[in-house]
Amino acid sequence: MRSKRFAMAATGWPGFAKSLKGVILDLCGVLYDSGEGDGVAIPGSIEAVKKLKASDLQLRFCTNETQATREKFVAKLQRLGFDISVSEVFPPAPAAIAVVKQRGLRPHLLVHDGLLQEFDGVDQTNPNCVIIGDAAEHFSYQNLNEAFRVLIGLENPVLFSLGQGRYYKETDGLKLDVGAYMKALEYACDLKAEVIGKPSLTFFQSVLNDMGLKPHETLMIGDDLVNDVGGAQYCGMKGVQVRTGKYRPSDEKHPTVTADGTVDNLAQAVDMILKQRGF
Amino acid sequence: MRSKRFAMAATGWPGFAKSLKGVILDLCGVLYDSGEGDGVAIPGSIEAVKKLKASDLQLRFCTNETQATREKFVAKLQRLGFDISVSEVFPPAPAAIAVVKQRGLRPHLLVHDGLLQEFDGVDQTNPNCVIIGDAAEHFSYQNLNEAFRVLIGLENPVLFSLGQGRYYKETDGLKLDVGAYMKALEYACDLKAEVIGKPSLTFFQSVLNDMGLKPHETLMIGDDLVNDVGGAQYCGMKGVQVRTGKYRPSDEKHPTVTADGTVDNLAQAVDMILKQRGF
Repeated sequence: MRSKRFAMAATGWPGFAKSLKGVILDLCGVLYDSGEGDGVAIPGSIEAVKKLKASDLQLRFCTNETQATREKFVAKLQRLGFDISVSEVFPPAPAAIAVVKQRGLRPHLLVHDGLLQEFDGVDQTNPNCVIIGDAAEHFSYQNLNEAFRVLIGLENPVLFSLGQGRYYKETDGLKLDVGAYMKALEYACDLKAEVIGKPSLTFFQSVLNDMGLKPHETLMIGDDLVNDVGGAQYCGMKGVQVRTGKYRPSDEKHPTVTADGTVDNLAQAVDMILKQRGF
Repeated sequence: MRSKRFAMAATGWPGFAKSLKGVILDLCGVLYDSGEGDGVAIPGSIEAVKKLKASDLQLRFCTNETQATREKFVAKLQRLGFDISVSEVFPPAPAAIAVVKQRGLRPHLLVHDGLLQEFDGVDQTNPNCVIIGDAAEHFSYQNLNEAFRVLIGLENPVLFSLGQGRYYKETDGLKLDVGAYMKALEYACDLKAEVIGKPSLTFFQSVLNDMGLKPHETLMIGDDLVNDVGGAQYCGMKGVQVRTGKYRPSDEKHPTVTADGTVDNLAQAVDMILKQRGF
């Protein structure tokens, strides 16, 4: 009996924290809540990031944020009080740029104004693919028709979607996310989009590569059960969900995704991890 | 051998025309091409409608048109020279109104301005379902978010889509059709829309009921292989495609839908039908 209980403790949460070499954190809903201006830091999260940085664990940040360049986005996090640098943050746009450059593609962009600068060095003449991000107000009838015409005019249409979220909440209400517009274009053009961002395997793998770690050595902490936790688990990582951000109680009885652990917030998760590791 | 050839002639096109009791015609792409103003009648189609009306066949018109009330739409056809009356034309909006009234639903509308009047007698207070049509310019980010919020706020969200077209062509280029926006809302709300219009079985059935005919007694003629021909065949009718409107040569080797006959235009179809019937 004792040995069995010991084995369970070693593989279950928070027991598996002992064998971790790295942690990946989602940003919005884990470190801060978005809203007017820069939004607000979630209580305890600034200190939690500090503690992780002071530990022997590697730390990266993985986000589906596509409304600002990486530089502007990180500057916002720093203003909120987080000790984070640009090279530690992985959003979809730089990954998309790497993909189109590698495949010799010239994108037509349907993205947020705040993200355009990220694509400054990318050839966009005579486009042979389309990249959509959370374009918000730029998801107009006109702009969607334009993206559609580019795709339908191509012999081999390629659509990249920066994430595949269904919707999100802002201070003035719920908004359709990029995934809804991805589905619209997929249907109209009879194609399947390539998703860049969570929960894409390739996207998580690029973060692991940067850390030089294997999936089983790494834990993802996020508020999105399907895209953060489920995506990380599909990749071979552990996935823990926080009860902040877009967490809903129904997540804890989800039909297909079960988190390796569920915690009240990032501060609690980090304290549990570090305690297991003897800090 | 002779009897076998005779049997084939009797069941294949145009042989089966002998046993028909009614014909249903699609409108745009069969009778006329849309464009500036009222558009233009397709050569021979005005005369073809006259010939059908003078025959012993029943005649109805079945369309997915949702940018104008039935009255205004029929007035346009009359200006183009067609002998058509309102009671002979079946568009999705009146069918949708019948459905919501029958089920005690109060729709939030995301439709074209030209269609709004059709819903004048329909209770739209405190909506408990959403109806989308080809809203064109009204498919704005704002309006889509609004329709989405109505749906996501309902315990049992119901979305009606007036047709499910992927796209269509206007003089200034290709445009996304209602089906693309239907898919966006389906994905965001994790639901399946109820399609009212071709190729819905219920929609075709309502036209057959009006004629008092059975499916095997009826022929549908359209330019849309999937929604006109395939939809009619699924319903038990015969389906003939015209090589006008949105017809493309690839339709004649479509992987799943094979028309019972393919003709150059409506005039040719009608002449072949009436010749078989000894007119």
